[in-house]
Amino acid sequence: MTSPVIGIFDSGAGGLVVMKALIEKLPHVSIVYFGDTARLPYGDKSPAIINHYACTSAAFLAAQAVNMLVVACNTASAYATEMLRKELTLPVIDVIAPSVAMACRQSKNGKIAVLGTYATINSGCYQKLITFLYPGAEVTAIACPLFVPLIEESMTDHPATALIVAEYLRPLRSAGVDTVILGCTHYPLLNAVIAAEIGEGVTIIDSASCCAEQTFQSLTDISSTQIAETPSYRFFVSDNVERFRKLATAFLPALPSELDVRLALHD
Amino acid sequence: MTSPVIGIFDSGAGGLVVMKALIEKLPHVSIVYFGDTARLPYGDKSPAIINHYACTSAAFLAAQAVNMLVVACNTASAYATEMLRKELTLPVIDVIAPSVAMACRQSKNGKIAVLGTYATINSGCYQKLITFLYPGAEVTAIACPLFVPLIEESMTDHPATALIVAEYLRPLRSAGVDTVILGCTHYPLLNAVIAAEIGEGVTIIDSASCCAEQTFQSLTDISSTQIAETPSYRFFVSDNVERFRKLATAFLPALPSELDVRLALHD
Repeated sequence: MTSPVIGIFDSGAGGLVVMKALIEKLPHVSIVYFGDTARLPYGDKSPAIINHYACTSAAFLAAQAVNMLVVACNTASAYATEMLRKELTLPVIDVIAPSVAMACRQSKNGKIAVLGTYATINSGCYQKLITFLYPGAEVTAIACPLFVPLIEESMTDHPATALIVAEYLRPLRSAGVDTVILGCTHYPLLNAVIAAEIGEGVTIIDSASCCAEQTFQSLTDISSTQIAETPSYRFFVSDNVERFRKLATAFLPALPSELDVRLALHD
Repeated sequence: MTSPVIGIFDSGAGGLVVMKALIEKLPHVSIVYFGDTARLPYGDKSPAIINHYACTSAAFLAAQAVNMLVVACNTASAYATEMLRKELTLPVIDVIAPSVAMACRQSKNGKIAVLGTYATINSGCYQKLITFLYPGAEVTAIACPLFVPLIEESMTDHPATALIVAEYLRPLRSAGVDTVILGCTHYPLLNAVIAAEIGEGVTIIDSASCCAEQTFQSLTDISSTQIAETPSYRFFVSDNVERFRKLATAFLPALPSELDVRLALHD
C-alpha cells in the first residue's frame, strides 16, 4: 500500500500556507496542488460562478487520483463545500469548519470575531457555523478587503497598515470578544499588527493551521499505516506558471529546488 | 442612416467612467457595454490569457453590431490592442494612446510620470509610447496596486490613503515631472490626494476622459451626420448582473432607472 495523496485546491497561491502546514505535519504524504490563477480571485464572483469554478477545479484534482480534497480557499469553502461533498466520492476538508470548531472550544464567553474577505463574510458561513456549535454565541464578523492587497504589497510594517487595521477592527473595541478567527489564508502575515490592535487576552485562531490539523486527523482515519516513501509534490495552475513557481519556491524552501509546476484547465 | 453604436469593453465596471464621459460628449449615440466580471481583474493574468479574454469579449461586442470598439480597460489596452486591431474590421480606440498623446502635448520639460496597476506598468506600454511621441522624454512609471482597493473601500479621505499615496509617489519628489498620467480608470477618484501630494504646477491627465475625447473625434471621422434619435444603452456582464446593475445605476444617474443588464459569455 502506498501512502495517500492529498489534493489541495485554491483560487491562487494562498493555499500554499495550508500546504506548508500539511508538509510539516505529514512529511511522507504526496500532495497535488491546483491554483485557479486564470480565474482568481473567487471573492468578487457570484455564488453560481464560484460553484462552477470550484467544481471544475475539484474535478481536475479528482482526476489526478487524490484520496482526499482540501479546499484551501475560504470563498470556495463558504460557497461550494456542500456541493463538492455531493459531487465527489472523496473526503472533502474545508478551511472554515476546523477553525470554527477550534474557536468554539477555546472561547470562554462565546464572544467570537471573524475577519475575512467580503465574499467570505457575506456568505454568513462562519456566523452560522459558530452559532450552531456554540448556541448563544455573539459573532462580530468584519470584512477586511484591504488586508490581502496590503500583504501582497509587503506593507505589513507600514504605518498605513496599522491605521487600516485599527479602522477595520474598531467594532472589536466594545464587543468584548475573547477569540478572533483569521478567516483568510493570508491574514496570519498580519498577526502582529492585529494582536497589537486587539490587545492581550484574546486568542487568535488561524484557519490554515486548523485546516491542516483536521486533514491530519482525517487522514489517520482513512489510512492507519503511513509508508515512509519519498513523497511527491506536483503543482498545476490555470495561468502564470512561472510566477507561481517563483512564489511556491520562495514559500516552500524545504522542497526540491525545481518544482513541478504545469499549466492545466487553461481556457 | 441611424447614428453609430459604440461598443465599450472593460474587465469590470471601471469602463463606466469612460461611458459617462462619452454620454456627455455624444448624447445621441447608442452604446453597448460589456464587463467581463466572471474573469476580472485582468491585471493579475498573463499576456496570453489577457489576449484570450480580450478577444472573446471583443468578439461578443462585434456580434452586437457595434461600429466602433472602445477598450476601456488599461490592462487589455496594454496587451491586446494590437491583436484586436488585426482581428476586427472595426475601428478600435484604446485607453492608453489618447492620454499619452495629451501628456506629450502638455509637457514642457518632457518629464512625465505614469501611475497604474502592476500589469499596466509592467507592460511598458505607456513608457514606450511616451518616448516614441516625445523623443528624449524621461518617464517615471509607478505601479500603485493599492489605489483601486482603497477607492473601492471608499477610503479616499482616510489618513491611511494619504500615507499610501505619499509612499507610492515618493520617487516623484526628485523627478521634476510636470505631467502625471492617471493610467487607470479608477484613479481620478484619488485626484485630490494625488494633487495635494505632487504639489502645484503639475498637470494631471486622466486616461478615461482622453479616451472619450479620442472616440468623439474618431466618430466624427466615420459618421459626419448624427441623427438625433433616442439612443439605447445596453449592458452585458459575464457574472453578477444585479451587482453591476446597482453600480451602473448609481454611476449613470441620467440614464433610465431600469437599466438593461444581461448575462453573457457565462462560462
